[in-house]
Amino acid sequence: MKAIIFINYKEGILDPEGVTISKALDNMGINGINELSVGKCIEMNLDCSSKDEAKKIVEASCDKLLANPNTETYKYKIMEE
Amino acid sequence: MKAIIFINYKEGILDPEGVTISKALDNMGINGINELSVGKCIEMNLDCSSKDEAKKIVEASCDKLLANPNTETYKYKIMEE
Repeated sequence: MKAIIFINYKEGILDPEGVTISKALDNMGINGINELSVGKCIEMNLDCSSKDEAKKIVEASCDKLLANPNTETYKYKIMEE
Repeated sequence: MKAIIFINYKEGILDPEGVTISKALDNMGINGINELSVGKCIEMNLDCSSKDEAKKIVEASCDKLLANPNTETYKYKIMEE
């Protein structure tokens, strides 16, 4: 079983890396970008037999370690291989 | 037009954040994760009319700033809104 997790800032929370990259691209002459946000993307190979079990591992990982509950949200996809 | 870019380490390049997270989860009693890798995920809102134009902006951004050509690879998706 494989899982991909996307972790982003919540709406209204400043994304300093995104702002910096946006300005840098503009200064380099790469225009046409209105909005840019940077998040983390975590891929996991899971050793379990059911999607429910995979969901439990992914949610426990995000809730207890990967995502900051104050400032970040996460979404994920689970794929059978 | 909207673009999502995924940036990951090339195969064979050590992913120190991934190794650290993997060990931490195991120590916290969250087991069943065989392999874990951490990448960046960048979302862009683009001010352009065609997919070709969007592709050019995304590839220029990755090649010139976002991805390290020595250690990282990128893939992307472009969506019309």
